[in-house]
Amino acid sequence: MNEKLPGYKGEALRILESLGAETGDFIRIEKEGRVYEGILMPRSELGDDKHIVIKIKSGYNIGVRITSDMKIEKKGSGAKPSFTPPPPPKQRPDLPRVVIISTGGTIASRVDYRTGAVRPAISASDLYSIVPELSDIALIDTEILFSAFSEDLTPKHWTKIAERVAEHIRRGAQGVVITHGTDTMGYTAAALSFALQNLPVPVVLVGAQRSEDRPSSDAAENLIGAVQCAANAPFAEVVVAMHQTISDEAIAIHRGTKVRKLHTSRRDAFKTVNAELFARILDKKIIMLTDDFNLRRNDRSLVLKSRFEEKVALIKFYPGMNPKIIDWHVEEGYKGIILEGTGLGHVRRECFSSIRKAIKNGVIVAMTSQCIWGRVNMNVYANGRELLSIGVIPLGDMLAETALVKLMWVLGQTENLEEARDLLTKNIAHEFSSRTVEPVEPPETVSV
Amino acid sequence: MNEKLPGYKGEALRILESLGAETGDFIRIEKEGRVYEGILMPRSELGDDKHIVIKIKSGYNIGVRITSDMKIEKKGSGAKPSFTPPPPPKQRPDLPRVVIISTGGTIASRVDYRTGAVRPAISASDLYSIVPELSDIALIDTEILFSAFSEDLTPKHWTKIAERVAEHIRRGAQGVVITHGTDTMGYTAAALSFALQNLPVPVVLVGAQRSEDRPSSDAAENLIGAVQCAANAPFAEVVVAMHQTISDEAIAIHRGTKVRKLHTSRRDAFKTVNAELFARILDKKIIMLTDDFNLRRNDRSLVLKSRFEEKVALIKFYPGMNPKIIDWHVEEGYKGIILEGTGLGHVRRECFSSIRKAIKNGVIVAMTSQCIWGRVNMNVYANGRELLSIGVIPLGDMLAETALVKLMWVLGQTENLEEARDLLTKNIAHEFSSRTVEPVEPPETVSV
Repeated sequence: MNEKLPGYKGEALRILESLGAETGDFIRIEKEGRVYEGILMPRSELGDDKHIVIKIKSGYNIGVRITSDMKIEKKGSGAKPSFTPPPPPKQRPDLPRVVIISTGGTIASRVDYRTGAVRPAISASDLYSIVPELSDIALIDTEILFSAFSEDLTPKHWTKIAERVAEHIRRGAQGVVITHGTDTMGYTAAALSFALQNLPVPVVLVGAQRSEDRPSSDAAENLIGAVQCAANAPFAEVVVAMHQTISDEAIAIHRGTKVRKLHTSRRDAFKTVNAELFARILDKKIIMLTDDFNLRRNDRSLVLKSRFEEKVALIKFYPGMNPKIIDWHVEEGYKGIILEGTGLGHVRRECFSSIRKAIKNGVIVAMTSQCIWGRVNMNVYANGRELLSIGVIPLGDMLAETALVKLMWVLGQTENLEEARDLLTKNIAHEFSSRTVEPVEPPETVSV
Repeated sequence: MNEKLPGYKGEALRILESLGAETGDFIRIEKEGRVYEGILMPRSELGDDKHIVIKIKSGYNIGVRITSDMKIEKKGSGAKPSFTPPPPPKQRPDLPRVVIISTGGTIASRVDYRTGAVRPAISASDLYSIVPELSDIALIDTEILFSAFSEDLTPKHWTKIAERVAEHIRRGAQGVVITHGTDTMGYTAAALSFALQNLPVPVVLVGAQRSEDRPSSDAAENLIGAVQCAANAPFAEVVVAMHQTISDEAIAIHRGTKVRKLHTSRRDAFKTVNAELFARILDKKIIMLTDDFNLRRNDRSLVLKSRFEEKVALIKFYPGMNPKIIDWHVEEGYKGIILEGTGLGHVRRECFSSIRKAIKNGVIVAMTSQCIWGRVNMNVYANGRELLSIGVIPLGDMLAETALVKLMWVLGQTENLEEARDLLTKNIAHEFSSRTVEPVEPPETVSV
């Protein structure tokens, strides 16, 4: 392994070493009458030893297969990034003050062509050089809090983020943007929705499905939308800002408790579930899609409730699921379990005695649906009714992911079981779409 | 508790007992100048003692609150069902022979007004009396296999269903319909897609979101569509037939490996994910929406591979998930684990050593995405690449639920790990939408 040629091995490594090349160099390959020119890219550790990968002018990477008659030469040394970042634009102190907190993820990363390493590009001047439009929208301050893949974030990170957001708001920020990996951005958005109460300004999570150095990137558009929102939106809630469609037309603003990543790669992967979309940015204008929101205020009297209990599990039910999985969590000292049941909120009868035991042991067990859309209603079928009588708490139309986060938060606020149950079923941050979590009578019964 | 008045207690029970009433009786209540008449219904065990529930003429249940000035009388004894089922229509032996196998669920259930019990109504004459149109479509034979809530079905039930379907087809059925609870119908559809190979005729799963005795029921329309499909469709595959929209216009025919219940209660809850819809029934016509399907044949040479390994788990990842959950499954002797990771197929690094240990112990670990739409691609980010190098198998655009069922099936077919891995990544029943499960090079790299 050559540190200057990460990922290269065998024949490919030998050829590149004989040229004295390193990643970031400008390379020219002639093969079968065609010429390929571009920046030498690092390989993944899984790559073979038969290709050399270069980034061609279009921005795409191509792997050139090594052949015996191929000609290769190094035409220039690690010249990228070829530009010196332009001097930061003049900041306008009349604009709203927005803080951008970086936690990592695709949106904050750029591949360093010299080393092949991914690094967060989040100093204010870096940001302005990538997205100069930002200087016309807000006076921006930046903080690198983490540089993590979002799947590695835990409830402890949520606490840290909430604390930093609160600190910046108390110091006068008129809006906060959090750049975040998209994988678990929905979970973090829910966490901040519960942890930051009585917010005076918007808190906007934003990510990118494709990194900034790829031609199809959504990073710049999303970031501009998020900063617009933080600087100027009339609401004071925790939201997620991402592409509304696969085009660059509109940015959707989702409420933090009702948003879910529903596609692995599309730019419009995030969707609001079981609620209307909260707002939209079109032609640089923020259009509210509901009247029912908390207004932006000038005071700084937010309430920070940032503790999360980590001994809470999300268990997705499937046919034949072993009830011992529930017992194991109880034995490990878990204090809460969110079941992701089938349909209106069911699991197999075989699980009932383990659930009963868990609840007798003081574990809070609550029900959501793996259907994603709709609401649980455990009064319709006998299995649902029996689960209710055992003490399972139905969570209406709350997303399973939001329910997990909320139960972690609830058990971080109180150790009193009755209080915890009350808090769990109370609408704190629009996690329930209607006020009634569950009709008391069966659904087609009208009380007269 | 009075067995003739299930669910009633306290004051409500006392009043009804004094009338000598039982559920199923015709009751008249006069209260505040209004009259309520209908069939006395049972209560759920969770009901209060302050309401009497009757089914009024419209089919809806109403709960009448007991007041001191209310007048109540019993006008007739358990008269419902008031009709004698009409004689079964004349069967037409020229029509295709279709077998309807009942496994339970809403579609097969009718509330017995006399007892309040839910019972399967699936003898051929019962069916014809409920849905007389069926006699014009097919010559129908019926079998009650189970009478279960679908969340209680396990892989053993899938085996049993597959065996019965095979038996009926070998005996000459020209199509098979399986009535099924909707909660886990997608899982069963996937199971039969793998277990029934080289099918000569269609196998159609059908359910209902609302039971047949409710005015908004989708049961009859769905059943008619399913029988049409079984009798006349040009394909020979395992499919699910359910409402395509919330209206009664069209029945959607979904491939068994690509279908998911995506709403708790809507009639159009089932959707095809990561593929085009397979077919549609509109105005009694079956419209194929793809050319790529297995044709119906006259031979009976199907292949039954109905064994499923139950020691396979589906683990949905969430932020902060305890890696010991994976260890526990290994210690319990699990042979396969489907991870439902985030985004393109990730879990936190903290889980890597447990996953490595599981794989070293001969457990097959494969990756799907909780995004539902899109495909996993573990070459893009370092965490994904490391999971690949540990030996986690990426499952492209396969649904997590289908992946679970497939791994259960694969490990029911072979104990050889290499064979199992091959089978898992091979396209058996259109569970992958394209032939390449995962590009070997990173996604924006083109090999030249």
